Amino acid sequence: HTFLKEISDPALHGPLDVYRNKASFNWKDMVRFIDGEDIYLFKQHVFKTLENDPLFARQPGEDVPIEKKREVNFLRYLLGKLQLKLSVYLEDCLGMYDWALVAKLFLSLGMFGATVANSGSSRHKKYLHMSMRTTAKYDPSTQEFVINSPDFEAAKFWVGNLGKTATHAVVYAQLYTPDQVCHGLHSFVVPVRDPKTLLALPGVLVGDMGKKLGQNGLDNGFAMFHNVRIPRENLLNKTGDVTPDGRYVTPFKDPKKRFGASLGALSGGRVYITRMALINLKLALTVAIRFSAARRQFGPKDTEEIPVLEYQLQQWRLIPYLAAAYALENFTKSIFMNFVEFQIGQMMKDKSDTAEMGREIHAISCSSKPLGSWTAQRGIQECREACGGHGYLAMNRLGDLRDDNDPNCTYEGDNNVLLQQTSSYLLSWLHAKQFDGVRIESPFHTVDFLEESQEILKSRFTALTVDDCVDSAVPLAAYKWLVCFLLEESQKRLEQERALGNDDFEARNNCQVYYCRSLAMAYIEHTCLQRFHELTTNQDTPAGLRPVLRKLCSLYGLWSLSSHMTTLYQEQKDIEEMMLKDDAVALVDVLAPTDFILNSPIGCADGQIYNHLWSTIMQGSKVLERPSWWKEFCSDKPVLGSLRPKL
Amino acid sequence: HTFLKEISDPALHGPLDVYRNKASFNWKDMVRFIDGEDIYLFKQHVFKTLENDPLFARQPGEDVPIEKKREVNFLRYLLGKLQLKLSVYLEDCLGMYDWALVAKLFLSLGMFGATVANSGSSRHKKYLHMSMRTTAKYDPSTQEFVINSPDFEAAKFWVGNLGKTATHAVVYAQLYTPDQVCHGLHSFVVPVRDPKTLLALPGVLVGDMGKKLGQNGLDNGFAMFHNVRIPRENLLNKTGDVTPDGRYVTPFKDPKKRFGASLGALSGGRVYITRMALINLKLALTVAIRFSAARRQFGPKDTEEIPVLEYQLQQWRLIPYLAAAYALENFTKSIFMNFVEFQIGQMMKDKSDTAEMGREIHAISCSSKPLGSWTAQRGIQECREACGGHGYLAMNRLGDLRDDNDPNCTYEGDNNVLLQQTSSYLLSWLHAKQFDGVRIESPFHTVDFLEESQEILKSRFTALTVDDCVDSAVPLAAYKWLVCFLLEESQKRLEQERALGNDDFEARNNCQVYYCRSLAMAYIEHTCLQRFHELTTNQDTPAGLRPVLRKLCSLYGLWSLSSHMTTLYQEQKDIEEMMLKDDAVALVDVLAPTDFILNSPIGCADGQIYNHLWSTIMQGSKVLERPSWWKEFCSDKPVLGSLRPKL
Repeated sequence: HTFLKEISDPALHGPLDVYRNKASFNWKDMVRFIDGEDIYLFKQHVFKTLENDPLFARQPGEDVPIEKKREVNFLRYLLGKLQLKLSVYLEDCLGMYDWALVAKLFLSLGMFGATVANSGSSRHKKYLHMSMRTTAKYDPSTQEFVINSPDFEAAKFWVGNLGKTATHAVVYAQLYTPDQVCHGLHSFVVPVRDPKTLLALPGVLVGDMGKKLGQNGLDNGFAMFHNVRIPRENLLNKTGDVTPDGRYVTPFKDPKKRFGASLGALSGGRVYITRMALINLKLALTVAIRFSAARRQFGPKDTEEIPVLEYQLQQWRLIPYLAAAYALENFTKSIFMNFVEFQIGQMMKDKSDTAEMGREIHAISCSSKPLGSWTAQRGIQECREACGGHGYLAMNRLGDLRDDNDPNCTYEGDNNVLLQQTSSYLLSWLHAKQFDGVRIESPFHTVDFLEESQEILKSRFTALTVDDCVDSAVPLAAYKWLVCFLLEESQKRLEQERALGNDDFEARNNCQVYYCRSLAMAYIEHTCLQRFHELTTNQDTPAGLRPVLRKLCSLYGLWSLSSHMTTLYQEQKDIEEMMLKDDAVALVDVLAPTDFILNSPIGCADGQIYNHLWSTIMQGSKVLERPSWWKEFCSDKPVLGSLRPKL
Repeated sequence: HTFLKEISDPALHGPLDVYRNKASFNWKDMVRFIDGEDIYLFKQHVFKTLENDPLFARQPGEDVPIEKKREVNFLRYLLGKLQLKLSVYLEDCLGMYDWALVAKLFLSLGMFGATVANSGSSRHKKYLHMSMRTTAKYDPSTQEFVINSPDFEAAKFWVGNLGKTATHAVVYAQLYTPDQVCHGLHSFVVPVRDPKTLLALPGVLVGDMGKKLGQNGLDNGFAMFHNVRIPRENLLNKTGDVTPDGRYVTPFKDPKKRFGASLGALSGGRVYITRMALINLKLALTVAIRFSAARRQFGPKDTEEIPVLEYQLQQWRLIPYLAAAYALENFTKSIFMNFVEFQIGQMMKDKSDTAEMGREIHAISCSSKPLGSWTAQRGIQECREACGGHGYLAMNRLGDLRDDNDPNCTYEGDNNVLLQQTSSYLLSWLHAKQFDGVRIESPFHTVDFLEESQEILKSRFTALTVDDCVDSAVPLAAYKWLVCFLLEESQKRLEQERALGNDDFEARNNCQVYYCRSLAMAYIEHTCLQRFHELTTNQDTPAGLRPVLRKLCSLYGLWSLSSHMTTLYQEQKDIEEMMLKDDAVALVDVLAPTDFILNSPIGCADGQIYNHLWSTIMQGSKVLERPSWWKEFCSDKPVLGSLRPKL
């Protein structure tokens, strides 16, 4: 294992030494197990490349105007573009630096091309319904389509890169043939700006959405069209075409089939968003746990303060999220492999298998994205609060991480809305078993246990002790029960709603809160826990790592379960977090990027929080200068004598 | 009721009409009941005054550099200062506009003066321990104190107004007499900048903390001192003084008594922070509920979309927070009155009563701040997600509300740490009863029910039906049981920890997670619910408002309870949210400020979300302009042919 020699040990001597020495496992073994040598070295290479390029230099907490953010991101994108091919690992690394850069690269290099090729994917599916009223009317006299958006509400919103630079857009519009027949939504390549000048083309109103909560390096835009003419060939004709003389032709008899087949293909974005969220969580945990280990506050004696990580409360706030990060690290990789298998299946044209895989990966991704993005959102907020005032300083990056993670809850479908897709998938299996006698068995095996539903529902978990819970099989079994229970309750509820005379639309909506939403969350948490449990019990997992992984796994299982069963949790969770306290620093060392990438003074690997904090503060802009408006202040300074107490 | 004539009805005709017409109560009656005529008119006057002053003009979502934010906030502060006296209602109004302005006014007009007068209060108590190593050594030869901070870690952090403009600071430092005896922390008025030039004085290193996640109009600063000499008289000598020849004299024999007496006085900040958080929540709910009522998405038929507020899921996400806002509106006023009563008690010098009041208001404020700030933090995040992509646009203000609310979780004590104060208070009552036979009865009656603890613990709530839950007495009774139960469990746990040989410091820390933290939260939620329940059942409450208030109260009770008992909740919560859907728009009309103050296009009173959104987008800076760096783009534009699919 020569690569070990190349790992620069993050344990620069300092306040974190004591925890690194107490860790129950070797962090380099964990790195080798999780990433492998090649990927680890590749990541370090990317980190160093960015660090050595002045274009990527930045100052923690700097106040960069949006226009400048977009320009800098664009210049960085030009460099990134030279890589030509984005890999997931490269995206991981660049995302740790700035997601807006990944988004710009992905939208230019991956997305636009993929959409043109497939006419199926969309980063902002949610907003597409707005495009329903944009029309593309075919004019056979010039062999052109004429694109029109009737009003503001029909405009395209949120399109990435469209705010400032996109020269072409893929526009979804209702296709009309000259006989005034509407053939439904199709996609068209529409030039929006002159590539030579970047000025909007005639009839195109295109501009910038303005400031967002985060990811402001990416220019999201809007567009409206007034009698914009495009050649007939600009119709992306996979689902249907128009002949030169204006007749509509399509290879699909039933458009629903086309939609069903594309479900799986649409899952790729959500699978990767799950991982984006995880990466944000990893960065936040690195900052908060290193800070907690280095920061001292109070203590049994007045003379000696203890690291805040020693407080049970601090452990209880942070360590479950650390366990979740390890669970999701394994899970996001496993569902990515599922997705790759599905894609290979599609290429091999084994259609029936592919359809089942597509349905399952759709159900997984529609719940893995909520699981990942919400876990990260809550975890980052907990990290921010756990760092107190230092977490509120922009320079420590927890605010940016939270803001950049936030859209993961929204795009590619609102989390709450997506969960309905997953519960429908599960209900369809129950229905197929009950009415058609189908055996429950899926390509990726996430639902297989439902076949044993009746036996599982008979099991009881009343006698749980602390010892029981060290074994993640215990929360895993409880989860199986929970999913089976919620599935039955969801179905009962759906039947009740229908018995009340509600139509399918209303019946399904009224089942979301009770119990479909919980069902979908329990299903994906079960799947995540199941796969982590398998990893920790696998004989191929290094023996030296298995104990700490088992603790992480059981903690994750019990903690996740607690959101479903507070009472059960209170009986069980005791001491679990305690056991991982001494491993926490080493566990984040495994997840952490370099200090340059992390970009957080209180999160540096050497734990010298005050030195970093001070030098960053001092290097800030005009930190010691009086304000430019000082004269106004001095001419109107409050007089000490006029001050009066308040409240 | 002449004032009704002056109320300009917010129901400009538009998409919200249908909900306003369906409301079960008259919103003007609710305004009159909650605020009263005088305060309502005063608030409208303040709102109009701000709106009519160009200095207060702003553009939703504008990207203002920090330096500019500070300057503008300072200029606004100069105007606000003319008011001379801050009232809670004025603070409410200005806070709805920008909390950084309130902070600057409060710190200059209220805080500094109050500290000089009382030498007791501190907005940033949490950071004071850092000041423990700053020293003030008395030099009798010049009758001066010499102030020194040994290193970075001993510097003052976070002091409001210190970043740019403060000329004097109140500094806590260890007082040394010439005999080298340390007399503990005392406070000193130290000049830090020359009032004529705003330049730092010799020996003073004073500067700006840099960018924060929010409230960037306020300049938080740091200061370090190197042999800074101040006159002997600058010692704030309420707790101790030094004679000209260097002897220490104090009126207190036991310094702990002084500390105990000041507990109540320190509660004022936390009481008001609870209200600040509520105001942020009100603004966010106004935006999200109006948006949900105006925004249409999907529907049973393809041709007709329905308002997203009609979806059970959207109601389930938002309406419990609306109920919480009404509960907290009543609660924050009631604890403010408790605090005023305590202050009056102090002025009347009725010391024994005051001490008990002080202890109780301390316990209330140490848990009301966590309750208010976390409810707001989670509620604002839910509002942001419930508005989808529109919630992610800066112009709609949900990001600013979240960021400006965030420090409420941290300053005046970290929420989690503060809760320990409340649980200790409750445990002390149990101890006094069990060991000294004391009857449990407190000045503000928040603990009186604990006297009946044994009877309450015998009650059972297994037979709850939906009908039961419409009466808020049911969740209220469940809460009483919960507090009694958690109090007993906390005490058991504490005794176990001590039996294990842990010292008091460790024993208390190890009880926080089980169960002291839950105990403190349950106690304050119970108090909030109890007072809301009393309001809704009070015969003085207008009959026409009681039904909707009762629904809000029972929903708040059940929803809060759910964080403690998920299982219990799932049996009960059904349909509660449904019943309030049609009242939601009118309920936020009651809470909402004017559109100018709200400053959120999707939250405008007329519900014309797209018109406002579009005009705001279009009025943005350089919205339709090509970027200044367009030439670089055009010389290096990606070639369409080189694009390739990804994933």
